[in-house]
This record gives sequence, C-alpha cells and structure tokens, in this order.
Amino acid sequence: MQEEALRSVAAFIKENDGFTVIAHTSPDGDALGASLALCGALNRMGKRAEVVCEQPVPRVYTFLPGAEQVRLPEQAVQMENVIAVDCADRERMGAAFRLFDNAAHTCNIDHHPSNDRYAELNVVDDKAAAAGEIVASLLELVLPELDAALATCLYTALMTDTGNFAYSNTRPETFHLAARLLAAGADNAELNRLVYRMVPFAKQKLLGRALDHMELLCEGRLGISHVTLADLAETGANAEDTEGIIEHVRDIEGVEVALFLRETDSGMFKASLRSKKAADVGAVAQTLGGGGHKHAAGYTANGPLDAARAEAVAHCECALRKVWKEL
Amino acid sequence: MQEEALRSVAAFIKENDGFTVIAHTSPDGDALGASLALCGALNRMGKRAEVVCEQPVPRVYTFLPGAEQVRLPEQAVQMENVIAVDCADRERMGAAFRLFDNAAHTCNIDHHPSNDRYAELNVVDDKAAAAGEIVASLLELVLPELDAALATCLYTALMTDTGNFAYSNTRPETFHLAARLLAAGADNAELNRLVYRMVPFAKQKLLGRALDHMELLCEGRLGISHVTLADLAETGANAEDTEGIIEHVRDIEGVEVALFLRETDSGMFKASLRSKKAADVGAVAQTLGGGGHKHAAGYTANGPLDAARAEAVAHCECALRKVWKEL
Repeated sequence: MQEEALRSVAAFIKENDGFTVIAHTSPDGDALGASLALCGALNRMGKRAEVVCEQPVPRVYTFLPGAEQVRLPEQAVQMENVIAVDCADRERMGAAFRLFDNAAHTCNIDHHPSNDRYAELNVVDDKAAAAGEIVASLLELVLPELDAALATCLYTALMTDTGNFAYSNTRPETFHLAARLLAAGADNAELNRLVYRMVPFAKQKLLGRALDHMELLCEGRLGISHVTLADLAETGANAEDTEGIIEHVRDIEGVEVALFLRETDSGMFKASLRSKKAADVGAVAQTLGGGGHKHAAGYTANGPLDAARAEAVAHCECALRKVWKEL
Repeated sequence: MQEEALRSVAAFIKENDGFTVIAHTSPDGDALGASLALCGALNRMGKRAEVVCEQPVPRVYTFLPGAEQVRLPEQAVQMENVIAVDCADRERMGAAFRLFDNAAHTCNIDHHPSNDRYAELNVVDDKAAAAGEIVASLLELVLPELDAALATCLYTALMTDTGNFAYSNTRPETFHLAARLLAAGADNAELNRLVYRMVPFAKQKLLGRALDHMELLCEGRLGISHVTLADLAETGANAEDTEGIIEHVRDIEGVEVALFLRETDSGMFKASLRSKKAADVGAVAQTLGGGGHKHAAGYTANGPLDAARAEAVAHCECALRKVWKEL
C-alpha cells in the first residue's frame, strides 16, 4: 500500500466538499461496493457525494446500501471533485468521464496493474485483491469506525473480486480485513445468499442444456459446449444467463482448456476460452481476432455452429499441444 | 474457546508419547484436515502418532500432506493415547472406536453442540467453525510455528466446513486464522482447485440431466428434480455424483424448499430436502420416516417415481403453507 498517496487522498477528502465517485462501466461487485462505501463515508463526514455509473446497478447488487442513489451520467450533478474507483484507465468511466474531465480536482483509486495514473491524486495498489481493500484503508484514515452498511459494501467488494477468497489475489491482509468487516456487521452468509444463491430458474435450465451439449476432446484436455438461440428461447434465458457456464466446463477433472460458444442475434457466435494452468488461450483468441489474457479470452466467430466449433477446436488443440508435457 | 481445557490437552500432548488420532467415519475435509494437522504436529514434536479412519481417504482429499499414512482400524497399532477429532459422539468413530475404548488416556476435540464429552479430556467449542480451528489453537501452545504442510491441512478444514467462508459459522477469528494459514504457506487458490475444481465429467453430465428434469411448483417456492438409474447409466455417473445437485435447485431465486429424488439400486428413492429460510424440512422428513434438521433432511421413498414425487410434493407444500407469510 502506498501510505503517502493514501494520506494525501485522506487529506483531500477532509479538506474538500462535493464529490462524484465514478464506478466503471458494466459495474461489478467491487466497483459498486467500493464506490458506495466511499460515498457513504463521505456522506457520514457531512459531505455532498454521489456515485455515478454509465449503467444502472445490476439487479443482483441492488441490495447494497446506497444502491438506490447511484446516478446515470446524464442525471448527475457536476461536482468539484471527482474520484474514479476501480477504473484502470479513463475509458473505463464510459460516459461518466465527462464529469471527471470537467472536475476541478481528480483522484484515481484502483488496483489494476495496467493503471496509468491518469488523475491528480493516484492511489494504485496492484497487490490489493479489490479496490474495496484500498477504500477500506482510506476509510481508516477518515472515519472513527465502520458501520454495518459500509462493512456490507466493502465485504461485497472483497467477496466478489476474490471469488469468495478462492483466487490467488487473496492475501493475509484480505482475510484480516474480512474479519474486521464481519465484526463491523457484514453478514457473510446473507451476502453469499444475495450474490450467489438467487439464480434465475431460466439460467439454471440453460446450464442444463449447455451441460447436455458438453463434450470432451483432445484426450480429455479440451472441454467444449455451446448454446444456440433455440436453447435460449426454449429455456426462456437471455444472453446474460450464459455467465458462469464456461466455468462448469473448465472445472472438469483433466480439462485444461474450456471453450464455450454462444449464438448471438446476428447468427454469429461469441466464443469464450478459459485455461487452467499452462495453455495460453489469449494467444488463441488473438489469432482469431479477439483478445484477453493467458487464462481467459474471447473472440467473435462466424457461424454456422459446426464451422465455428471446428475452427476453435483446431486452434485450441494447437495451444494444448504446445504445453502438453506440462499438463 | 475453553482456554483451560486447551491448556490441559497441550500438557497431555507434551507429557506423553504414542497417539492415535481418530477422524470420524465418512470423513470430510475438516475431520481429515484437522486430524492430519494434529498428527503432523505430534510427529514434528518427535512423537509416534497416526491418523485412523474407518474409510480410506476420499480421492478428493488424497492431496493432504500425510493422507497416504492414514490407516484403516484393522491396520492400526493400539496406542496408549487416543484423540478423537470432529466426532460428536463415540459412534462417529465407527470401527476405530475399539482403539479409543482400549486406550489408557482419551481426548475429544470437537465443535458439535451435541458433543457429550465422552473422553477424559474434552475440548468442545461449538462456536468454532471447524474442528480445525480448535486444533490450530492447540498447535499454538505446542509448536513454535506452523509450516506449509500443517497450514494446508488446517486451511482445508476451515475452507470445507465454512463452504469457502460462506456459512454463518464463519467468525472474525476464522478469517484471522485463514490469514495466518495463508502467511504460513497454505495456497488458497490451489486448495480451491483441488477440492472444488476437479469435477468428474460424468458428474457434470448428470447435473445437466437433473437440471433438465427440474421443475418449479407452488408458485415457484418449491423446486424439484430427480435422477433415475437410467440417467446414471447413460451419463456413466455413480450415486456419489449426485452430491451438490440439490444445492443447484435450492439456489434458484424464489425457491424456499428444494426436493431431489435419486433412484437407488433397489428401485426405491433416496429423497433429499433443503430449505432456505423458514420452512422446516426436518419435520417433513420425520413424517416420512427419515430425519435431519430444519434446513437439510432426507428419507427413503417407495417408487415408482411419480408416486414418490407426488407424496413428497404434497408434504413439502404443507410445510410451505405453514410459513407462507414469512417468505
């Protein structure tokens, strides 16, 4: 943690009034949890503050204290001070960037290694598991204690960005903070229920379809599946409901690369790729006109399904053969 | 934590030699992780010790350091001192109870509220999320520090008994311990992969079948599914692979009671029940000749499937109607 940068931001917050807190586009639990905790803390300090985000709060996160006050950029008031949270670069603010661009003072709180320090004040800690970890450290400097609402926002940030403390970004500090948030009133069981255990029926039916379609290739190292527009229509699911399917394919014993194809409205396919250990699916996606990183990537493929699948399988097999001995 | 009882056990360990550590029958991650950590610590103190369990270590837990040395009761050497771990009563030791019964000195380390203090020395802390939490406190009194192998065993105990820190048994102390174990060398990401991300292909295909069969009844409050012997045969899955299916039904938005029927070799059905909040499925199971508690229960039902299902649905509907206003 950059102690000095953190103290500068604490001083900046204490000395000023009127803050816009920007959560990134397509907001996740960390962007919203960290932003709402920061905004809530500012309000408790008697300061005017609001969270702004290009999209409305996704339904799953509407339980977060303060979520009902998050504004779209076109509804937002221009404040003097703007703090971007969990935004690796200016583009991640989407339409909310206008507020950042017109601010008198700007601040950038983030944990992405690629962050290019685009603000006047920057606290970037790429060892933090979540932006919420940095906000929690900041709140220690400006508030006497955390209440249950702030702890709930910060716990949600931690929980979602660490996959329930399952990813390697989890540090001892992350667990110590989780302990503090629990003691301050965050309800871990209820937050798990709200975030992970309210699955739409249609989404679960769609998962059933995808698992029915699933096959193993390349001596069990490649797992593939797909859903068609017909699968979506027949289960009543939408494109969002395909989220998480690829992890069910990846998590199969022996599978190193998982491939999932989703038919889009235009008759094309959105291809998602995951790898567990050695295979570089980012390179596969790049070859096919997409992008991503070693363990998670994607691209757009032309139909029909059989052609899209054959092309993807051929490239995945090459990627697997390169690392075969390491598996 | 009962500090005094813990210090007595620490003294008992320091003063004696020759220990059998008994993990309960059908051992889970906590029973094995806590037992192996305790046995490993005894070995590091230069003492003879071994873990005994009625069943072989389940494949998923064979990665635990020391797992290869766990003995079946018939292979075990009778030691002077026997410590039961995570066993609520004598019966939970299964065939290993003989060793306990013939011991010169006995000890009982457990976190079940129903534990009836059956040993000479008893450390029972029902606030501990896992028996592993109690063992960790004990090891603080007898070892200068934890190494990575012991930390791995204890982390696995915590992780599995809290459902990755998702259950309400998780306390601030649990998180502080997790932090300490991570710092001592437990690899949370790798342990998650080993325990949760090595799903057999056939199990995932069977889940697909069960999700295909899934229906919502009672205005969406009751989710039901089943797998038949034909489903098992066609997917290549076995009875063990049905584990976890009912949670996929329970986790659906709006579902309060989940029912899952599995056809057994005898043409009967094993019924499992779960509830989320208010409905008492333990009472349902009891009426139908089974048992369990409010949120998780089971019983054996006569076939054919349609009859078993109709009976179960009728009883679940009654249980739901009783609490309808609370949902």
